[in-house]
Amino acid sequence: MLFHVKMDVAIPRDLDPAERDTLLATEKARALELQRAGVWVHLWRIVGQYSNVSVFDVESTDQLHQILWTLPLFPFMTVQVTPLAQHPSALAAQP
Amino acid sequence: MLFHVKMDVAIPRDLDPAERDTLLATEKARALELQRAGVWVHLWRIVGQYSNVSVFDVESTDQLHQILWTLPLFPFMTVQVTPLAQHPSALAAQP
Amino acid sequence: MLFHVKMDVAIPRDLDPAERDTLLATEKARALELQRAGVWVHLWRIVGQYSNVSVFDVESTDQLHQILWTLPLFPFMTVQVTPLAQHPSALAAQP
Amino acid sequence: MLFHVKMDVAIPRDLDPAERDTLLATEKARALELQRAGVWVHLWRIVGQYSNVSVFDVESTDQLHQILWTLPLFPFMTVQVTPLAQHPSALAAQP
Amino acid sequence: MLFHVKMDVAIPRDLDPAERDTLLATEKARALELQRAGVWVHLWRIVGQYSNVSVFDVESTDQLHQILWTLPLFPFMTVQVTPLAQHPSALAAQP
Amino acid sequence: MLFHVKMDVAIPRDLDPAERDTLLATEKARALELQRAGVWVHLWRIVGQYSNVSVFDVESTDQLHQILWTLPLFPFMTVQVTPLAQHPSALAAQP
Amino acid sequence: MLFHVKMDVAIPRDLDPAERDTLLATEKARALELQRAGVWVHLWRIVGQYSNVSVFDVESTDQLHQILWTLPLFPFMTVQVTPLAQHPSALAAQP
Amino acid sequence: MLFHVKMDVAIPRDLDPAERDTLLATEKARALELQRAGVWVHLWRIVGQYSNVSVFDVESTDQLHQILWTLPLFPFMTVQVTPLAQHPSALAAQP
Amino acid sequence: MLFHVKMDVAIPRDLDPAERDTLLATEKARALELQRAGVWVHLWRIVGQYSNVSVFDVESTDQLHQILWTLPLFPFMTVQVTPLAQHPSALAAQP
Amino acid sequence: MLFHVKMDVAIPRDLDPAERDTLLATEKARALELQRAGVWVHLWRIVGQYSNVSVFDVESTDQLHQILWTLPLFPFMTVQVTPLAQHPSALAAQP
Repeated sequence: MLFHVKMDVAIPRDLDPAERDTLLATEKARALELQRAGVWVHLWRIVGQYSNVSVFDVESTDQLHQILWTLPLFPFMTVQVTPLAQHPSALAAQP
Repeated sequence: MLFHVKMDVAIPRDLDPAERDTLLATEKARALELQRAGVWVHLWRIVGQYSNVSVFDVESTDQLHQILWTLPLFPFMTVQVTPLAQHPSALAAQP
Repeated sequence: MLFHVKMDVAIPRDLDPAERDTLLATEKARALELQRAGVWVHLWRIVGQYSNVSVFDVESTDQLHQILWTLPLFPFMTVQVTPLAQHPSALAAQP
Repeated sequence: MLFHVKMDVAIPRDLDPAERDTLLATEKARALELQRAGVWVHLWRIVGQYSNVSVFDVESTDQLHQILWTLPLFPFMTVQVTPLAQHPSALAAQP
Repeated sequence: MLFHVKMDVAIPRDLDPAERDTLLATEKARALELQRAGVWVHLWRIVGQYSNVSVFDVESTDQLHQILWTLPLFPFMTVQVTPLAQHPSALAAQP
Repeated sequence: MLFHVKMDVAIPRDLDPAERDTLLATEKARALELQRAGVWVHLWRIVGQYSNVSVFDVESTDQLHQILWTLPLFPFMTVQVTPLAQHPSALAAQP
Repeated sequence: MLFHVKMDVAIPRDLDPAERDTLLATEKARALELQRAGVWVHLWRIVGQYSNVSVFDVESTDQLHQILWTLPLFPFMTVQVTPLAQHPSALAAQP
Repeated sequence: MLFHVKMDVAIPRDLDPAERDTLLATEKARALELQRAGVWVHLWRIVGQYSNVSVFDVESTDQLHQILWTLPLFPFMTVQVTPLAQHPSALAAQP
Repeated sequence: MLFHVKMDVAIPRDLDPAERDTLLATEKARALELQRAGVWVHLWRIVGQYSNVSVFDVESTDQLHQILWTLPLFPFMTVQVTPLAQHPSALAAQP
Repeated sequence: MLFHVKMDVAIPRDLDPAERDTLLATEKARALELQRAGVWVHLWRIVGQYSNVSVFDVESTDQLHQILWTLPLFPFMTVQVTPLAQHPSALAAQP
């Protein structure tokens, strides 16, 4: 089940640099782990912004919330979730 | 080069039903053709809306505009285009 | 799996009165059917508006889209879907 | 009498951690108490956000304001209240 | 129990003039009746707009919705309802 | 001459508690004084918000600005003023 | 007493051309009359829009509403009124 | 003197096709004429929209308004004008 | 050449009081100087807000930007500029 | 390939003055370098704002993002990117 997720990141200027580096490294590791697990199926940068557009494939809304809520950068993100359905004109929907 | 495209469709109530059917059939045929050509790489329905979220892979902004402008449903669409770049945490960006 | 759905209804003034009556009757019948099936779990009117706030309990986003897309009043609705998760302070989440 | 309430929470980063823990614990206790009393009748998390959608059943607008104003997290919340009425197609409204 | 109600009116240009006159006369009669009954407690025009700001004193949200929904001009209104509570600095709140 | 005024209050967290108490006490005293003088003719709390909806009866826009600008809480308020006129369906407008 | 008024005009395409010409001529005559009377003290066109920014000098909000409501183009205008006060740095405010 | 102008075009569906063709041809001729005159210095299409972003070089705001107001497509455009100044980091601003 | 300028002022709470007083005094002196020079031709306070609506008469957009950018309060202002043209119904436009 | 880019700058008040000076100097140097390289093809100031409107000519969205992301002022900018295509009425599009 797919969900479109937009994440806007705003890391405070006064965050300790070491804490910031750790945060970014653990965020990246977590993103790679979720991509390898087939859960975070797309991840693109929006040009000119500290934002991404992503697509998640999850079993439930509870699973999706648990994943987003525990992202290392979550406290510094604004997240917008849009549920997706199969489009009747998509290749995958053709008989 | 990827672009995120959101299309909201609003077909007028008074459109001739035969014209409407033709329009929808040609739109679907064109969408399938562009997907098979590897240009319209993702196409999802937004749940509860006559809207889709798409990703296009094109050579240029001129090509993308030409494609969107000539979609059969274009006169009845509101289209929003967002340029995408590779995300440094995407699997494809890893060495 | 729960989804919060807001529906704003705008029936065109020039809709044939008989068609309108049929539409409203079939919409109501469908709403009752879906409530009895345990899918449309809450349905409230927003005071002073031709709008409702609803909660649906579905198996998937595809199922939810199918339900909304085929509501008799769907062509005259603006629909906004928000995915819900269990709240850690909800009674149902307590051990 | 039902009211739809959306609460968006934003706890300042510099809040003392002990104060924060106390705040969250008292907020949860209060939420459970109000749910057990039949006043806070629904409480859902919005996926991907530090927000909830709730429904309250109260005797009056004064009672509702008193409840919201005295929530431990109120100083860190943005609250939006929408009055609800019985929907004519709701099961409960059928004869 | 008080509710703040903003009503924006937009009567279609093509409404039959006689129907329009009847509508306006019945709306005015209904407004006067509700004011005399102590339900529509304030009614002001917004300068430069076909809009009013009103305050209603009702027993319940269902009563308020019933009143608004059956106003003769309701089909041509956009209505926004805000619940009010006693303000601690209001004269009426002083001991 | 009536004006509709909406005030949203946001007192900074780091305001000195004694200063805050003084501020709130003087604000309340001023609000009562202006109500007793027949200038601040209505004052209601918006449910769930640190906001009020008010109606002022003043001689001029200069007088209204002077009153609002010198409210003790003014530096922490967002204020929106809407001029009101007599509504032709108001009881007071009937011959 | 000064009020800042923004008027956006949208004349329907299907208005009878003769009616339109009459409307524009009477609007212009009324605007000139009100300017000569010292009531409509400023009238500027917004570049690239069928809109104006105006300043009115009136005795009361009732007078201002009466003037705006009876403008020949009023049924085709969106009007936004902002009350003005003397600015302490204006030349006219200097002793 | 430069102005940034965004034009969104919405030609009504029911416009007579011959009138539409004439309109588009005269609009194009006028755009070319103004470009050759050095007044309409930039003209770009926004990808996926019936909109353009333009830059005009004019002597005065009256001249700019006159040009925009008399564009053949003006009645079907929404126009937004932003005044531009020389940027201190622009090449042309360097000594 | 006239421009409509709206300025919203937000002076930080933690600005040094002496610096603040100097800032306000120099801003006022500059505003008076520009008014006397016939450049800042109107300056009004918006009732209930730390904002003004102004009209400037300048030779060019570069001159206007230079004036606004160097206002003492500019770092604490949000400024919105709208170009104005002569209105065909203005007294000054009559033959 | 052209992109329209709007940049709004907000440098924090508490940034070290020397750091600020360095930042502005390196930003300017980088802007000149990119203009000389034919990549940053237009750069205009928006009158009355710490903002610019720019046009970039790049090979790809990745190149554009890399350029914007590494601008010295990027951490203090809000950036909005709009892809452009050749307009059929532009001089350059004529045969």
